[in-house]
Formats: sequence, structure tokens, C-alpha cells
Amino acid sequence: MERHIDDTLDLVVAYRTLADHRILDAYGHVSMRHPERTDRFLLSRALAPELVTVDDIMEFDLESQPIDKRGRDLYSERFIHGEMYKSRPDVFAVVHNHSPTIVPFSITPDVKIKPVSAVTSFIGLGVPTFEIRDFQRGADMRIITNELGRNLASVVADKPAALMRGHGAVIVAKDVPTVVAWSVYLEVAAQQLFQAMLMAGPGGRVITLDDSEVAAVQKRQEFGRPWNLFRTKVLKQMEAEKRAL
Amino acid sequence: MERHIDDTLDLVVAYRTLADHRILDAYGHVSMRHPERTDRFLLSRALAPELVTVDDIMEFDLESQPIDKRGRDLYSERFIHGEMYKSRPDVFAVVHNHSPTIVPFSITPDVKIKPVSAVTSFIGLGVPTFEIRDFQRGADMRIITNELGRNLASVVADKPAALMRGHGAVIVAKDVPTVVAWSVYLEVAAQQLFQAMLMAGPGGRVITLDDSEVAAVQKRQEFGRPWNLFRTKVLKQMEAEKRAL
Amino acid sequence: MERHIDDTLDLVVAYRTLADHRILDAYGHVSMRHPERTDRFLLSRALAPELVTVDDIMEFDLESQPIDKRGRDLYSERFIHGEMYKSRPDVFAVVHNHSPTIVPFSITPDVKIKPVSAVTSFIGLGVPTFEIRDFQRGADMRIITNELGRNLASVVADKPAALMRGHGAVIVAKDVPTVVAWSVYLEVAAQQLFQAMLMAGPGGRVITLDDSEVAAVQKRQEFGRPWNLFRTKVLKQMEAEKRAL
Amino acid sequence: MERHIDDTLDLVVAYRTLADHRILDAYGHVSMRHPERTDRFLLSRALAPELVTVDDIMEFDLESQPIDKRGRDLYSERFIHGEMYKSRPDVFAVVHNHSPTIVPFSITPDVKIKPVSAVTSFIGLGVPTFEIRDFQRGADMRIITNELGRNLASVVADKPAALMRGHGAVIVAKDVPTVVAWSVYLEVAAQQLFQAMLMAGPGGRVITLDDSEVAAVQKRQEFGRPWNLFRTKVLKQMEAEKRAL
Repeated sequence: MERHIDDTLDLVVAYRTLADHRILDAYGHVSMRHPERTDRFLLSRALAPELVTVDDIMEFDLESQPIDKRGRDLYSERFIHGEMYKSRPDVFAVVHNHSPTIVPFSITPDVKIKPVSAVTSFIGLGVPTFEIRDFQRGADMRIITNELGRNLASVVADKPAALMRGHGAVIVAKDVPTVVAWSVYLEVAAQQLFQAMLMAGPGGRVITLDDSEVAAVQKRQEFGRPWNLFRTKVLKQMEAEKRAL
Repeated sequence: MERHIDDTLDLVVAYRTLADHRILDAYGHVSMRHPERTDRFLLSRALAPELVTVDDIMEFDLESQPIDKRGRDLYSERFIHGEMYKSRPDVFAVVHNHSPTIVPFSITPDVKIKPVSAVTSFIGLGVPTFEIRDFQRGADMRIITNELGRNLASVVADKPAALMRGHGAVIVAKDVPTVVAWSVYLEVAAQQLFQAMLMAGPGGRVITLDDSEVAAVQKRQEFGRPWNLFRTKVLKQMEAEKRAL
Repeated sequence: MERHIDDTLDLVVAYRTLADHRILDAYGHVSMRHPERTDRFLLSRALAPELVTVDDIMEFDLESQPIDKRGRDLYSERFIHGEMYKSRPDVFAVVHNHSPTIVPFSITPDVKIKPVSAVTSFIGLGVPTFEIRDFQRGADMRIITNELGRNLASVVADKPAALMRGHGAVIVAKDVPTVVAWSVYLEVAAQQLFQAMLMAGPGGRVITLDDSEVAAVQKRQEFGRPWNLFRTKVLKQMEAEKRAL
Repeated sequence: MERHIDDTLDLVVAYRTLADHRILDAYGHVSMRHPERTDRFLLSRALAPELVTVDDIMEFDLESQPIDKRGRDLYSERFIHGEMYKSRPDVFAVVHNHSPTIVPFSITPDVKIKPVSAVTSFIGLGVPTFEIRDFQRGADMRIITNELGRNLASVVADKPAALMRGHGAVIVAKDVPTVVAWSVYLEVAAQQLFQAMLMAGPGGRVITLDDSEVAAVQKRQEFGRPWNLFRTKVLKQMEAEKRAL
């Protein structure tokens, strides 16, 4: 494998950060496109996010087949990642989660997630909902084939994310810092919009960002400051773990 | 006693994990059927869950009498466990809790808990509510006799769980990892369904898993990944406690 | 001073435990009647609860005057404690807090806190609301005189607790373990009743404990198990603090 | 630079405390007026609040230009601070945050934040909402010029705080302990009022502090006790960080 240790470490930071923020529990995963080969991506072996280390990161082709399995268990839903990278050349990082306040938005078809603030403005680019019943009846809810992965990717289309009914969400972005920040702030938006809706009451006014505001934020926003925080904290955490051994 | 240290350790992991997830506070308990004698079960002496160690685990017969009491205090509600093992040969692990978001579901008779996602799909097998007034007026709310234990078991019947009005829940499963995961995800389902109901409003649409989806998930689902996480964390925690002495 | 170190330590455990459970933040306090002199009580000097140590505990008479001030700052609302001990010979421990989910119950006069479960059943004995406007217009909200303390005690009367409008609550009990557990479970009841009310909707059914159930629980309930947990944790915490010095 | 180390340390305590209380996440900032020059203020370089140390504090003039940049990154919204100090000679400390329960109040124009208790009584002095659309269409939501800073300051006027629509809040006070406490308790008020509104239902009664109560509290309230707690905890935390190196 040709990957840089630093990129792999970024992926570990992403796993740990999403677990720390309770965006991932024992399930869910994050991947990045291979930094030197656009036809491959990096993803952990099947493992709870907060346990992932550099040694657990594996390489996959865009069919979501491992390059060098060596007997390791694989996430059954790795096809989400492969198909997103295949259909979206602009995407270099993917999160699949079951973020606690997002699941309820996925099962209430008459309620839409909206951008409530600048950090959540990417939602204004569109967050459709994937209904697995449109593609498979009596599903076990998982995306465990390339075909289901393609179905999901067709719903995501050119958007930054999709909710998955009765399941969670998929978030796609140009790099790891952005996909992590968007995953965190998608959950934040859900919490804040939920509260605003209840306070406003049925038919009450809730002011979300308009298209011109969304466009203005998207033009300039990057997430260097949170990423610096997340990376610093995870590296400290990993240092402490090493010392405890 | 003939039990394997490893099984006992699993039970300690279950206690600590349920306390960590705030499924148990100072009260509530988890048991497992004796690995070598189906007419016995293992349960801690009366102790707050997060304090339980291997040395606190005791052996009981199916009348919920201790095999070797040695002056230790017993949980007054141990009869829940004995009667569940007696009536359900398929059950090898039992949790009794007062999970924070579940209690409100137990006291709102017109609101039903539902499976909102794959990890909560076992709820689709049925979660009835036990009303102690149907069996005893002016109860002190506890299951402190074999008769009350039998009453509760008759309401659980062949289901994976029952809510207990003004009290909490009982969850039963084929093994410790499953009963712990189901206990965690029953609470998660309650949180997410509560939010979805409020967002949808009275009469609004909330899409829960249908019977074919529940059946498809049940056919394949096991909880090896969360169990690996829980076990890893508790063992690390116990190591740290030992070092601190 | 004649007090036993062990009783004083219990009071420190109470302060720390209530801070750990976020029943107290930087404000609020807990006292106990002097173990050997019923005309005195023990209370910390003015200090945030999680910082309280054995050395901070002071002795007061029932007028809430310090026996031996030695220049230390005093809680301005210590009169709550003195007047409760004066009016209630059966009371040996008092908590005053601004528990987060309780404050909203104090300002919604048409909503009543109710016992939702066995651990919260003491609420069924009655929890009136103290409206300071009934005694003082333009108040700064605090109980900073013996007269205001007597006013509050007159509203508490023979009950285990009272809410204080726009302020918090006072909880009184026969001993420290009970007053701590009741303070924790008053907050839990508020959280669970809030959820149940919202789920049931206006006019919907919420089943709380009836008088016979409340009476049955009160006859037997003590809080030895949570107290053992709380004490164990605080002592461990204090040990760790000592080692860190 | 002439500043006292102690004042700078206070600012670090403010950053860490607001992060600990989740009033600030990776974003947001707190400043203080220079203790010896009223035409300058102190603010961290662009950094996530929980990472700020004494070495990161920089000095700015009231145009929000750094006195001695030395290549460091600057918060893009530092103009909030400069313009508040310029327009309000009585202000010596400023917080800008995106406090989680406050954002929903900023986007629900028909819902007003109110003082629910003594610690939140400053809200009774008035908390207007800044709508950036009144000053700039298609904004990227940030206060990144002196002009936008002046616009915001004109909405704050003589009040202790303003909400910022789809963004967060600005809080101004006479010193660092007060601005930190007000920031914490603005969030607490939002949580408690949200709950009270839902419990009372549409048109239901919620009793907030009246003007005479607000005035009486304002006359005497200071936040020495929480500040002592916050300072003690952060200093301990910084000691532990030093030891870990």
C-alpha cells in the first residue's frame, strides 16, 4: 500500500471525533478516497469507530472489494462508499451514520431539515430522503450490495447528503475535515430546528437561511478551526492510550 | 460453583455498560442463565450496577433463591429473573431497568413504542405494557414475589420485552450481548420516536418499520460489534481501577 | 465543635453528588441537622458545591447565625435551612437547589409535578409551589431573612418539598441519603413527566401513582443502594484529588 | 504589551469555561477591554476556545486591528468586539457565541426570550434580535467589517445582549465573570423557557420575572461564586495538562 501515514491518521481522527460527538455509536463509518489513486478508497475493517487505529485502515476498490483482505471482517455497508466515489468524482470523503436527532427526520416525511445557521448552511444545497422501499420491499434496511449503493447514490445525486428512512444519513464532501464538520452540524441543525419548530408551533414562523445566504456562506466556508481542534484532541487521546499500555 | 470466569465477566461487562449508557442508574439489574445448568441463573448481590465486580456475582435457582447466600443482600426484585427463565426456555439473559425515556412510554397508555430503525427492530416483535394494578391494588410497584414475577412473565409472553407502568422495563434475549444491545436501543427508540411524534404533530405521519422489514432484520441481526466495544471499554476501565488501588 | 467527622463527610458526599448529577450548579446548598444538638445545623461556607470539603463545613444555630464565623463568607439563603429545622422537628436534612427541569415547573402554575414511578413517589405526598409575591413585592427572589424563611416553611408545611417560583426547590427529609435521593428523583420526575405530557398531548392520559401506591412505597422505601454508590464515588474522587496534589 | 498576566489568565479561564459548558464549540470567542488602556481589547488569535492559552491572547485597537500581528490568524468576526467597546464605554467584556438552545430563539421571531429566574434576570433588561437582512442582503452571516459591527452594536444599544438571527448571540458586561455567567445563564434560560412554553401549551401561563423583580436582582447580583468555581477548575485542568507533557 502506498498511502501516506498522515492521510490515514486523518481518517482515524475522523472516526474518533464522530464517536466523541455521538454522531457514530458502535455502528457507522467514515472513508476517504485514496490520496494517490482515485479508483480506491480507505475505510476501517469492521470495528466500532472509537476503537479504530491506523492499523485498522484498509484499502478498497470502487466495487467496495478489499485490495488485501487478510482475513479481516468488513463493514457490510461498505458499498455506500464505493458507489458514492464512483458516481461523484468531486467527492473525497464519505460518512454513513445513525445520528440520533437525524433518524427522526428520516421517518417524518412531512418535515424537512433546513439550514438554520451558517455552519449548517450546506443543508440548503439539498438533503433528499432515501426510501429503501422504493428499491426493495422487505429490506433488512442495509445497503449491502453495489446495486443498493447505486440506488442510494442516485438519490444523493449532486447533493451534500441524504437522509435514509428508518436508518440514518450519508454525507459526502470534498475532504475529511468538511465531511466530519458537516456530519456534526447536520445533527446540530436537527436539534435546533426541532426546538424551533416546537416553539413556533404549527404554522408558526421559523426563519431559515435563504438561497442567497446559503450561496454566500458556501463560497467562503471551510472548517480548518474545528478540524484543528478535533485533530489536537484525538492525538492527545491516542498519546494517553499509548502511555496507559 | 462451576461457572466459567469468562461468563461471569460478561455479566460484569453488562452491568457496567448499562450504567455507562444510563440505562441503569443506582437501581436495576441484569442476569444470565447459568452456562452449565439451565435451572440456575447468575445475578449480582444487591449493589449499584457500576460497582459490580466478578466477586459480587451470585448463583440462584429458578425460584430466585440464592444457592449460597453467605449473608449477602439480595435484590428484592430478583423474582423477575427467575420467573422469566422458568417460563421462557429460549431466554438466557434478562435486564430489568428504569430507563429514563422508557418510563414516560409506560405511563402514556395511548402511545405505543415502535421500531424506528434496524437496531430497534426487535420492538416490532411486540412490547406489551405490564400494569401491576391488573394483579395487585395498592402495590409498592415492585416484583417481590414469585407470583408477581409470573404475572409479569405472562404479560411478556413470547415477546422480547415489556414496559412496566410507572416503573420501567424488562428485556429478555438469547444471550448477554443481545439483551444489552436491546436495552440500549429500546431507550434510543424511545428518544427518537418521542422526537418524531412531536415533529409530526397530532395525526402526522411517522413511518416505522413494517412487518416484512422487522422480519428481514431479525433474520440476520447480531450485536457482535457493539459487544466488542462495550467489553473492550469495561476491561480497560477495570484495569485502570486496579492500577488506582 | 462536637460533630463526628463521619457526619461531616456525609454532607460533603451530598454536595459533590448533587453537583455530579447537575442538581446543583455553582449555586444551591445542602445541610444536615447537628447529630448531637437538635438546635444546630451544619452547612458549608459560601462555596460552589463541587468544591466543598470537610474543612468548609460550619455550624449554625436555628436563627441561621454561625457559631464560629472566623471571617468566612456565608450563603445568603442559609435562612431556608434554619427555618425548616425550626418548624419541622422531623427534618434532619435540607436541600435548596435550582434543578434545571424543576424551574420550568415552578413558573407554569397550571402544570403540576406528579409521582411517575416508585423512586419519585414521595412527590405524591404533596409538592406545593412557593410564590414569593405572596409575601414580598419586587423581591430579589432570595430567601435572605428569617421571615422569608418562615414564609417558605409555611408553604412547605408537612410536605417533603416545595417548588419556588422562578427560583428552584427546597427538599426536606429525615436524613442525608433521603434528601439527596429525593433531590435527584425530583429532577428525574420532572424530565419524565414533561416527556409524558408532550407525548399524551392536551387532555391525553398520563397515569401517575395513586394514593394507595404512594402509601405502599413510602412504607418501605429507603435509599441505601444509591447512597452507597454516591459515597463510594465521592470518596474515590477525593482520594484522586489528594493524589494529584 | 503592558497587560497583567492575571487579567490574561482570566480571559483564558473564560474561553475554557464557555467551552466546558458547551456555550462555545469550535467557534465563538470572548474578549476583555485592556485593563490599562480603554482604547484596546484582548482576544485570542483564531483558535478553538478549548485550546486557548495565555500565549494566544493578542491585543487589538478599537478598529479591531491587531497591535502586533506576528503572522497569526485572526478571528474574522473580531469586529463585533471592537465596535461594542467603541459604542459602550461601560462594557469591559464581550462574548460572541452560537449557544445551542439560543440559535432556535434567534430564528423564531414570534417567540421572545424571557427572564425565568434570578440568575437569568439580566434578560429582563432587554435582549433584541439582530436581523442581518436589515443591513445586508445575501450576507454570509458573519460580522466581518466595522460597519456590520456598528450595525450589530446599534441593535444591542444599551442592552446586555442581542440574539443574532440564524447565527447566535452577543453578550456584553462590565467584567469577565459577569459576561461568562450571563452567557451560561442565557443558554439555561433558553432551555427552561422552551420547556415551560411546551408544558404550558399555546396561550398557557408562564410566569417570568416582572420589572420590579428584575430591578431588585440587578441591584445586588454579582457572580463571584461561579467565577471562583470556573477559575479553580480551569487552573486545575491547566496544571494537569502541564504534567501530561
